[in-house]
Amino acid sequence: MPKLIQKRSRKIGLPPGTIVHVGEKKVNKAKIAIIDYDEAHFQEKEAKNVEECFPFKDKPTITWINIDGVHQVDIIEKIGKHFDLHPLVLEDIVNTGQRPKMEDFVDYIFIVLKMLYYDEKKKEINTEQVSLILGSNFVISFQESEGDVFDPIRERIRSDRGRIRKMGADYLAYALIDEAVDNYFMILEKLGERIEDIEDELVTNPTPETLHTIHNLKREMILLRKSVWPLREVISRLERWESSLIQKSTGIYLRDVYDHTIQVIDAIETFRDMLSGMLDIYLSSISNRMNEVMKVLTIIATIFIPLTLIAGIYGMNFKYMPELEQPWGYPVVFFIMFSVGIIMVIYFRKKKWL
Amino acid sequence: MPKLIQKRSRKIGLPPGTIVHVGEKKVNKAKIAIIDYDEAHFQEKEAKNVEECFPFKDKPTITWINIDGVHQVDIIEKIGKHFDLHPLVLEDIVNTGQRPKMEDFVDYIFIVLKMLYYDEKKKEINTEQVSLILGSNFVISFQESEGDVFDPIRERIRSDRGRIRKMGADYLAYALIDEAVDNYFMILEKLGERIEDIEDELVTNPTPETLHTIHNLKREMILLRKSVWPLREVISRLERWESSLIQKSTGIYLRDVYDHTIQVIDAIETFRDMLSGMLDIYLSSISNRMNEVMKVLTIIATIFIPLTLIAGIYGMNFKYMPELEQPWGYPVVFFIMFSVGIIMVIYFRKKKWL
Amino acid sequence: MPKLIQKRSRKIGLPPGTIVHVGEKKVNKAKIAIIDYDEAHFQEKEAKNVEECFPFKDKPTITWINIDGVHQVDIIEKIGKHFDLHPLVLEDIVNTGQRPKMEDFVDYIFIVLKMLYYDEKKKEINTEQVSLILGSNFVISFQESEGDVFDPIRERIRSDRGRIRKMGADYLAYALIDEAVDNYFMILEKLGERIEDIEDELVTNPTPETLHTIHNLKREMILLRKSVWPLREVISRLERWESSLIQKSTGIYLRDVYDHTIQVIDAIETFRDMLSGMLDIYLSSISNRMNEVMKVLTIIATIFIPLTLIAGIYGMNFKYMPELEQPWGYPVVFFIMFSVGIIMVIYFRKKKWL
Amino acid sequence: MPKLIQKRSRKIGLPPGTIVHVGEKKVNKAKIAIIDYDEAHFQEKEAKNVEECFPFKDKPTITWINIDGVHQVDIIEKIGKHFDLHPLVLEDIVNTGQRPKMEDFVDYIFIVLKMLYYDEKKKEINTEQVSLILGSNFVISFQESEGDVFDPIRERIRSDRGRIRKMGADYLAYALIDEAVDNYFMILEKLGERIEDIEDELVTNPTPETLHTIHNLKREMILLRKSVWPLREVISRLERWESSLIQKSTGIYLRDVYDHTIQVIDAIETFRDMLSGMLDIYLSSISNRMNEVMKVLTIIATIFIPLTLIAGIYGMNFKYMPELEQPWGYPVVFFIMFSVGIIMVIYFRKKKWL
Amino acid sequence: MPKLIQKRSRKIGLPPGTIVHVGEKKVNKAKIAIIDYDEAHFQEKEAKNVEECFPFKDKPTITWINIDGVHQVDIIEKIGKHFDLHPLVLEDIVNTGQRPKMEDFVDYIFIVLKMLYYDEKKKEINTEQVSLILGSNFVISFQESEGDVFDPIRERIRSDRGRIRKMGADYLAYALIDEAVDNYFMILEKLGERIEDIEDELVTNPTPETLHTIHNLKREMILLRKSVWPLREVISRLERWESSLIQKSTGIYLRDVYDHTIQVIDAIETFRDMLSGMLDIYLSSISNRMNEVMKVLTIIATIFIPLTLIAGIYGMNFKYMPELEQPWGYPVVFFIMFSVGIIMVIYFRKKKWL
Repeated sequence: MPKLIQKRSRKIGLPPGTIVHVGEKKVNKAKIAIIDYDEAHFQEKEAKNVEECFPFKDKPTITWINIDGVHQVDIIEKIGKHFDLHPLVLEDIVNTGQRPKMEDFVDYIFIVLKMLYYDEKKKEINTEQVSLILGSNFVISFQESEGDVFDPIRERIRSDRGRIRKMGADYLAYALIDEAVDNYFMILEKLGERIEDIEDELVTNPTPETLHTIHNLKREMILLRKSVWPLREVISRLERWESSLIQKSTGIYLRDVYDHTIQVIDAIETFRDMLSGMLDIYLSSISNRMNEVMKVLTIIATIFIPLTLIAGIYGMNFKYMPELEQPWGYPVVFFIMFSVGIIMVIYFRKKKWL
Repeated sequence: MPKLIQKRSRKIGLPPGTIVHVGEKKVNKAKIAIIDYDEAHFQEKEAKNVEECFPFKDKPTITWINIDGVHQVDIIEKIGKHFDLHPLVLEDIVNTGQRPKMEDFVDYIFIVLKMLYYDEKKKEINTEQVSLILGSNFVISFQESEGDVFDPIRERIRSDRGRIRKMGADYLAYALIDEAVDNYFMILEKLGERIEDIEDELVTNPTPETLHTIHNLKREMILLRKSVWPLREVISRLERWESSLIQKSTGIYLRDVYDHTIQVIDAIETFRDMLSGMLDIYLSSISNRMNEVMKVLTIIATIFIPLTLIAGIYGMNFKYMPELEQPWGYPVVFFIMFSVGIIMVIYFRKKKWL
Repeated sequence: MPKLIQKRSRKIGLPPGTIVHVGEKKVNKAKIAIIDYDEAHFQEKEAKNVEECFPFKDKPTITWINIDGVHQVDIIEKIGKHFDLHPLVLEDIVNTGQRPKMEDFVDYIFIVLKMLYYDEKKKEINTEQVSLILGSNFVISFQESEGDVFDPIRERIRSDRGRIRKMGADYLAYALIDEAVDNYFMILEKLGERIEDIEDELVTNPTPETLHTIHNLKREMILLRKSVWPLREVISRLERWESSLIQKSTGIYLRDVYDHTIQVIDAIETFRDMLSGMLDIYLSSISNRMNEVMKVLTIIATIFIPLTLIAGIYGMNFKYMPELEQPWGYPVVFFIMFSVGIIMVIYFRKKKWL
Repeated sequence: MPKLIQKRSRKIGLPPGTIVHVGEKKVNKAKIAIIDYDEAHFQEKEAKNVEECFPFKDKPTITWINIDGVHQVDIIEKIGKHFDLHPLVLEDIVNTGQRPKMEDFVDYIFIVLKMLYYDEKKKEINTEQVSLILGSNFVISFQESEGDVFDPIRERIRSDRGRIRKMGADYLAYALIDEAVDNYFMILEKLGERIEDIEDELVTNPTPETLHTIHNLKREMILLRKSVWPLREVISRLERWESSLIQKSTGIYLRDVYDHTIQVIDAIETFRDMLSGMLDIYLSSISNRMNEVMKVLTIIATIFIPLTLIAGIYGMNFKYMPELEQPWGYPVVFFIMFSVGIIMVIYFRKKKWL
Repeated sequence: MPKLIQKRSRKIGLPPGTIVHVGEKKVNKAKIAIIDYDEAHFQEKEAKNVEECFPFKDKPTITWINIDGVHQVDIIEKIGKHFDLHPLVLEDIVNTGQRPKMEDFVDYIFIVLKMLYYDEKKKEINTEQVSLILGSNFVISFQESEGDVFDPIRERIRSDRGRIRKMGADYLAYALIDEAVDNYFMILEKLGERIEDIEDELVTNPTPETLHTIHNLKREMILLRKSVWPLREVISRLERWESSLIQKSTGIYLRDVYDHTIQVIDAIETFRDMLSGMLDIYLSSISNRMNEVMKVLTIIATIFIPLTLIAGIYGMNFKYMPELEQPWGYPVVFFIMFSVGIIMVIYFRKKKWL
């Protein structure tokens, strides 16, 4: 199960701006990939060491530096120094327990997102922190592990599809955010399918297992909500931001991705409502079944216990029990037993228990 | 049951503005209907191909182009190109998972609504996305399927009833929204009837089926709310919008449809409250019945088990049981049994169980 | 039970501003009563036809026209034409499913209220829509049926009590609203009494009937809230309104009635909280009683079933059962039974079940 | 139990500003106490009739007139006339169902508070309405009954402790409000103790009585909240008020009492959360006990019923039952019974029921 | 268990600004520690009496005066007099029931925080009030007891690590707040671990003890929330504050600690949601188990009671019972019993009870 909270105890007491990695180490070695492009030309390479990125800072073309793995704090520190990033920004990049947020500095905007992956085997959602630095002509993205979510964007840049090569670094940042939000929809579809499965199960054959799944889904909704809710504010602020780093023409795209975020939040709230309703259904179906069990027990006991008493009475060993001597005694008692049984059944019919 | 969320996985990774239909295909072939009118004249025709609409763009008369079926993306694209619509708008038109929203561009306003249909057979609500493009002298409406909800407006234009022929394109857009909202009232009436039926059933004869219906109604309320709630904001923004596309005289009509939307939202909230209350009633009526069943069982067991013991005692085969030899043994035991039974009944009367 | 929602299906498809009565017809023939007054003189009459009201429009004295019965749309239409009312206003007057609201036009203010009546027999609240048109020197009030709630105001005008004859039409409108809100307090008192009765019943002798009453009261709270909540906004807007129709001196009276509305809302919320708490109490008292029933059953079964086994054992017909032959067999078994019973009782005492 | 709502039916229909006492009559005769002071001198007296207060209106010294008992409307009316109070203010003073509120007039500020008393015997909270009129050099306070809550302030004025004699009438009004809020803390302590008692009881020995107490405490929280919540707004408005009646130096004191009010509200919310949690605990402890009862019953029945069957079988009177003739029959059956019992016990151990 | 509310009854009736300690006395003697530093030099000493602090007020270097123990009101009063603190500030420092808050005066800012400690033995959170006075060149901190939470800051100042020696008093105040917030994360980790333990327990083996722990955790969440929630507002106000006491360069650090506070609040809300979900799971797992118990009981009773009746019938002592005489009687009855048992088992299989 995903951890409820990141361990950050070893950070306590350190001065602010100290760069200590908080979170799981998800890859062995950090990987640095550079894509440099403008409308006319395109260049892509994997950097062997962090210094290879530095010349791109002052080139007029758009540069996208993607770093997979934030546990190698020396790399983060070097990039921070060269690109003039604030120590608190570097601290937030390596501390993977951030909420999505947006902070503007004079020369760059710092954005934190949560990327979500659905683990098909464990049937749970994994989160990964993605940090973006948007400068005037570059975007630096930091991921915890190697992911393929941004591949379509790489492909679009390579093949010059869409308008991405014609736009600036802000459009690239938008495209990355948009891709992350699009990915949320995939997660929601998976969860939606599971909820619909559970809903059918609830009607046909609810088991304690069903309850457990509802609980897990609820838990995942809580975590999902925590990742997506603040993103709304982030994008809304980006859209309204008056900064030379974000061009007016990108505004409409940000409004579009804002709409998508609202749709995601809407869906999460709908799912939460559904799951609450399903818990109620589950509980009342248990009550219903208990009721049914009780009825069976009551019917059996109510019919047979009086008959057993009758049989018991004529099993007594009194010397003077005139009925016992009579030839009609046995059939009459049998008849009485039968009648009592029938009367009981009729009574239960009337009470709608049968 | 209506899907909780639209599948849009195949859209992931495509550049923004790519026009891919998301949602069910509800009609075979898209149908294009054109109505062109002003105070003096009126023309209505069904367009065989999309190009027939184009000349109407620059005519001074009011033109209403209605397209049933948004899965034929080529049509949408051609219209988009001719009427200068933003690619993101076209994307939203064909992606039927939008929330109701309003977006203004310089030359047109883009509005997304949800039309609701009540399927009498399946007893559920179907949603359909309706997109409106409001230009200075035209309205383009996109529906997922052929619907007859807008027929009264067509009729009003044809027969020049009301003020519709005297007003501009903004009034036409208002009339379409108003019709959709009026339609919500019909849905609410149907749901209100079902809720009142269920309420009676709850008192007279609650079954697990009742619970199921409550759950389904709750689910439908969630979906309904999702469709109507954002519309409030849309209409409120339209009303307050300062744009040459919306004339001052239309403002009061928008305020009226805004009031109706609030009434719909009010009714939805009332229904939700009612349904929650009904769930409580259902649960406690189950508990009540279980209680009653338990009482019957307890009364039977408590009366007969002690009597059975007495019968059992005199059924023992001890050689020296003086009572067995006595002629009064049998009647005395009978009398004791009878007395114990009576005492028990009196006890239960006192406890108000009988 | 009051309807959850007004049927307005026959309105669908009609152009906005079409005046069709929606709601129950509560009186046979509409009644028009005119009161005309200023500080010096006073005139009261019942109009035989609607045209009799018209001359009062331009008289400098304050005129109050009260119409009981809004189903006669021709009367409403005539008044609308003469007093220059907007078609949408007329539509709202005859459509009795409105929420309380306030709309200002240049020459008049349109106010919709809900009047509440407590039906002592059916023990339920009936709502009635009251619409007010406040002009510079007249107030037109529309009621669904003949009510006597406004009688004290008539009496005050007739006998020149209070300051009503010295003030303008806005004060008259205030007085009508104040009377309606005062009437809410009476409803609240009735409901408060019923809630307190139920609360006692809950402690002394809860029955399924109690649950039903709680449910009905909850339902009535929902409807009550729906009628009162928007009124707060209406009065608050009236108070802050900068219009020549409302004089400054009336502001303090509006603030007073605003305070009363808040008190009513407060009381409704308190009642809702109380009713929720009572439902919890009811449910747990059912559980408690079930628990008690179960204990009785368990005590009886646990004491007598083992004893029955002992009796059964000595009722077996084995040839070689040495105990059966002994003269002390019977008393010893009796003693054992007695001891087992006592031990059980002690055990239950220790467990605090007895 | 305190009434949920004040009866004010006899007020309905009277013109606004009519002074009719609404609420219980808590003292026989109203008592008027006057304290007049400035830095240099001090005078205290009990007024025999209301006219004795009048000369103090125009004296430059600070005057505090305290009236215990608001049912004598003639006194209120005379004061109202002499001090130029608005009729609606007088109406609110004698109508004890007000919410806390603050209203400013040109010459004075009108403040309504709720004073709370804890009745140790009935273990419930009583509310009393306290109205304050703050003029430029006087404060008039109206209480429903004689209370000793304001005694410390009297004492402080008499003995010139603190800064009260050096400050104006606004500081006196602040001191009265502060005293009332301080009194709330005492109520909260009492309630906090009761909640902690109940919490212990819930763990050691929950009874239906416990539930009843939780319900009563919840009810009292609702009433408490109703009294305190609006006070926050009142004090906040007083603090921000730009009026010559409130000096800047008093602002910081008002901020302090505002903080206290927030602390009270915080505590109330905490208590409400606690009580909700306790209700859950109570309900689940009932379920737990029912479960335990059921287990005992099931264990007894499951062990003894099969044994009884075995005994019953060998109690049958068939002629040809070979086992019955055997000398080992009885011990073998005994052994079988014993084994069945042991197996059952082992089974229940495994199921963790024993 | 931590007290729900601080006893402050003995304060009631005292004039505002009276300095009376409210809360537990946690240390014997107050300890005063002084640290004085600037970029160039550093001095640290423990003051034997309060007067030793006074000369530092006017030195241009940054001075941090830390007082452990607020029950010695004479020390607080002397400091208050020398540093010109408002009496209400001093009152708040010694009254440990404050909410976190921030108050600005002309020469200093007064901040109240809550420090949280996790008591490993009692498994509960203890709160301590920390008050800060931020002047232009000094910070005075008041703690209830000697704590080591601020030790890392002392160490950083001593060894000139980070930027603390280069920055002003506002940065020192920030560092103290940051340390307190960092400490909250440690508390959250502890609670998170306990919640995850309980979650496992809930699945494997829920006991009434589990319920108790959930309840205690919920209670602690309520107290935690009460301590952290207002801090958000405090830091946000500090950040936005336009005062010469807070330099622009500190703003970004305050924004960082603000982010951390939001993360803490987020985690608390997540935990609360989790705990609510766990309570539901607990309750339904009890219901589930009750259901299972009921089924066992019903199966046993339903199989054996009819068989017991059969045995009882042939135990009757009628003279004329032909079956009894037959040699096949006993085996046939045995066979019938066996068949009835089998049929019952098949029936329960079909009902999925076995």
